[in-house]
Amino acid sequence: MLKEKIEKVIKEAGQYVKNVDYSHVEMHSKLNFRDLCTEHDEKTQAFLYAELKKILPEAKFIGEEDSHSSESLEGYCFIIDPIDGTTNFALDYHHSAISIALVKDGEVVLGMVYNPYLDELFWAEKGKGAYVNEKPISVYDTDLKHSLLGFGTSPYHMELAKETFDLTYSIYPHVMDIRRCGSAALDICYVAANRQNVFFETILQPWDYAAASLILSEAGGMITDMLGGRIDLLHGCSICAGNGRSHAEFIDYYKSFKERRG
Amino acid sequence: MLKEKIEKVIKEAGQYVKNVDYSHVEMHSKLNFRDLCTEHDEKTQAFLYAELKKILPEAKFIGEEDSHSSESLEGYCFIIDPIDGTTNFALDYHHSAISIALVKDGEVVLGMVYNPYLDELFWAEKGKGAYVNEKPISVYDTDLKHSLLGFGTSPYHMELAKETFDLTYSIYPHVMDIRRCGSAALDICYVAANRQNVFFETILQPWDYAAASLILSEAGGMITDMLGGRIDLLHGCSICAGNGRSHAEFIDYYKSFKERRG
Repeated sequence: MLKEKIEKVIKEAGQYVKNVDYSHVEMHSKLNFRDLCTEHDEKTQAFLYAELKKILPEAKFIGEEDSHSSESLEGYCFIIDPIDGTTNFALDYHHSAISIALVKDGEVVLGMVYNPYLDELFWAEKGKGAYVNEKPISVYDTDLKHSLLGFGTSPYHMELAKETFDLTYSIYPHVMDIRRCGSAALDICYVAANRQNVFFETILQPWDYAAASLILSEAGGMITDMLGGRIDLLHGCSICAGNGRSHAEFIDYYKSFKERRG
Repeated sequence: MLKEKIEKVIKEAGQYVKNVDYSHVEMHSKLNFRDLCTEHDEKTQAFLYAELKKILPEAKFIGEEDSHSSESLEGYCFIIDPIDGTTNFALDYHHSAISIALVKDGEVVLGMVYNPYLDELFWAEKGKGAYVNEKPISVYDTDLKHSLLGFGTSPYHMELAKETFDLTYSIYPHVMDIRRCGSAALDICYVAANRQNVFFETILQPWDYAAASLILSEAGGMITDMLGGRIDLLHGCSICAGNGRSHAEFIDYYKSFKERRG
């Protein structure tokens, strides 16, 4: 019942995001670019807050466009990204998503990531498996060598770029190929659906991964920080997502990579 | 008339590609992976050859899955990629395309790149502008600093990986961000539609870029090899695609990058 209500809200938000009019956008202006993102991010978030509040009035909120985020995860809390993949969104790249996690006492109990361009809803309820639309998904046991590796560049943290590029180049001969698609939420869901087999980014925020983390876990996958530690739903952390095997092999690789670099 | 006939063929091929049944695929087996690609690549190419032959019986063919490719571009010739983005296809990543170029006496006169997952047809006829579905597209004058940079890893040529990664890391502070989506034909079309603003790959084949090269040119963009030389429709070459400004700035950057490396 809760699932159906939240699905209705996320799909309505998706239609809004998909149907934004780009005809007046001149993308060589950085100012226009930021304005476009902020305007639609804020509008979508306001819509989600209002509609989700109706469904679960006692829930708190943590969101990207929010300076009044909750400081605790007691009780019910929605962790929301109105548009995950904002650069893609601003360029009409057709690869962004809306992400909603419902957390109860610190644990994600429902996760939804909706890509309106492909009309694909990745979702999971705690203990009930993971789905894309009506189709169940579960991870294969693909090893690192046969894995397609997705990664993020942590674009808001230029100081991490060197590690990201060094690691990606270093691991490249040990994977099948790489992808950089620009939406961490979809990246993690794509691991859950075996569209890629492992994903990392050196820093992300809870709204990027909260919903997708349950979807991946319910698909039988693993998500931790890049050293294998538990993910943090209140503060940001690095992320490694994979199936049991690719996840373990990536983390072993990363630890030895860090040791070699000193 | 020719355009409508070829559009019908490419969309039918797209439906085939989109509706492949993945339920029996176990992706941890490399053998299955290659078999899946080869089987559907060959089937799609055979369909395209048969149907396009009906439309233009005198045309020769150059295609990825073809050991009897034409050795000259005199008269009419179709240059075809039945599935551009085969790794994506094999993993059901939802980002691949069918690419058809019609060449007349060495010059592309019609180009079509069809992404069946988003039902988007990028197309152009020589001298008549470029379109995605019915919408005209033309490139902005975005400079390199504000450009989203797409790149390919030339996965069949591991010896080029170091240059690709060094260049990407080196140029990263001078662009907005990077993408690696796994379909060169779509990458070039996305430059034409301002979804990204510049693209490079150190080696590609004519079937990867022939159709997209006309779409980009008709959108007002530039496509050359990475040193600014004319692209080769019979043999492979490196590719740089951009708008006038981002293309020129990328090539300047690449030349100085090569000089610095010695």
